[in-house]
Amino acid sequence: MMKNLDSLLKDGERFDDLQRDGLQIIQHPSKFCYGMDAVLLSSFVSAKKNDHILDLGTGTGILPILLSAKTEAPVIDALEIQEESVDMATRSVKYNHLEQRIRIIQGDIKTASSLLGKDTYDVITINPPYMTNEHGLKNPSMPLAIARHEILCSLDDILRESYQLLKSKGRFFMVHRPFRLAEIIAKMISYRIEPKRIQLVQPYDNKEPNMVLIEGRKDGNSRLTVEPTLVIYNQDGSYTNMLLDIYNN
Amino acid sequence: MMKNLDSLLKDGERFDDLQRDGLQIIQHPSKFCYGMDAVLLSSFVSAKKNDHILDLGTGTGILPILLSAKTEAPVIDALEIQEESVDMATRSVKYNHLEQRIRIIQGDIKTASSLLGKDTYDVITINPPYMTNEHGLKNPSMPLAIARHEILCSLDDILRESYQLLKSKGRFFMVHRPFRLAEIIAKMISYRIEPKRIQLVQPYDNKEPNMVLIEGRKDGNSRLTVEPTLVIYNQDGSYTNMLLDIYNN
Repeated sequence: MMKNLDSLLKDGERFDDLQRDGLQIIQHPSKFCYGMDAVLLSSFVSAKKNDHILDLGTGTGILPILLSAKTEAPVIDALEIQEESVDMATRSVKYNHLEQRIRIIQGDIKTASSLLGKDTYDVITINPPYMTNEHGLKNPSMPLAIARHEILCSLDDILRESYQLLKSKGRFFMVHRPFRLAEIIAKMISYRIEPKRIQLVQPYDNKEPNMVLIEGRKDGNSRLTVEPTLVIYNQDGSYTNMLLDIYNN
Repeated sequence: MMKNLDSLLKDGERFDDLQRDGLQIIQHPSKFCYGMDAVLLSSFVSAKKNDHILDLGTGTGILPILLSAKTEAPVIDALEIQEESVDMATRSVKYNHLEQRIRIIQGDIKTASSLLGKDTYDVITINPPYMTNEHGLKNPSMPLAIARHEILCSLDDILRESYQLLKSKGRFFMVHRPFRLAEIIAKMISYRIEPKRIQLVQPYDNKEPNMVLIEGRKDGNSRLTVEPTLVIYNQDGSYTNMLLDIYNN
């Protein structure tokens, strides 16, 4: 096993254990590594057993790999523009023997509906860049900068293409930063992906939320469910029961 | 004192103690009585000592009376359409000796900017009807129905008039129900009252929020602050420290 493992790794890469069903992911510690946002998004997603899922901007493939364990969806497509990430994700899928369910596709979100077809998916997931191109310092490392800033695609690109890619009443799941929530909601409505469910995530019960999970529905009606705010840590630094419930489901 | 008190009350009315600075409010128990939403909104509002405040749809005057204690604002105007509520609010203001700061005005929110003047207020507060005219059963008692359903004014009326009534960069504070949050945010942006701050309110840490407090700014830029979710009760039914901090400030 160790030999097989090593043969899939390139310089500077390592396997990280996803603590679920023996799944592993190839990551490069000095480049982009997945965070809790991806794990929480994978738990926020609900998919039925015949659903076709698409993960946009999949990076090293963390979401499709987690969704393979957390859902029964038979088809999980995952789109990524950066060649190096496509290569790592492809090798992770191979290592986990998920080639029958997960397809890693190199391509651009901005033209995703031309590439993958309109009215094709029941579920779209995305962990997008949080910062607009104007916000904050850009990371000098290109993969990190692309993961964090709207360099290669904007929120408008994501919503326009997602509307086209989704089947009628298809569902859209995104994790983002609360400071952009007003803009996100307004844009989702304008692109007819109606916000249907949101959940704030706070590090502590008395700290501002630093993530928001959002579910939208193509051409859905206007009524929002707001979930109880998810608090990650108790004051003593241990995980809350709410967080443990999510990690164990 | 008791004599003075009694002489201000009409049939079926009573004084309720606001537990703050000795303030009292006249209410009619079988008609509309204020709730925790009004108290939380009054604490969510920030006003500077020269600010002119307007409370839209003031009912029996709970918000202006609380804001007289919680802010140093020298002018608190309060608009109400129902004659009976105007009468009760006027008597409460008189009883509390607040005639120099609070002015109860009978009038319609739909034409408020014509009545009160454009670019007039630094701060607007509103505890509006939560239900659209289509939602839920209407209360057969008219004052209650008007307080709960958008019979006499809609969210569009409120936002259109508030934009006109506010000075440049003036602030708008509203309490509402989370199920309408997406619609509220989209409409605020379309009426150029940019959402700047929101806070969810949950009864318990594991229950869905049942209120949302919202601050907007006339012609503000697009960046939202989301406050830590306010939880009212501990699991044992006692008030949380967060709630006690608000009640004591």
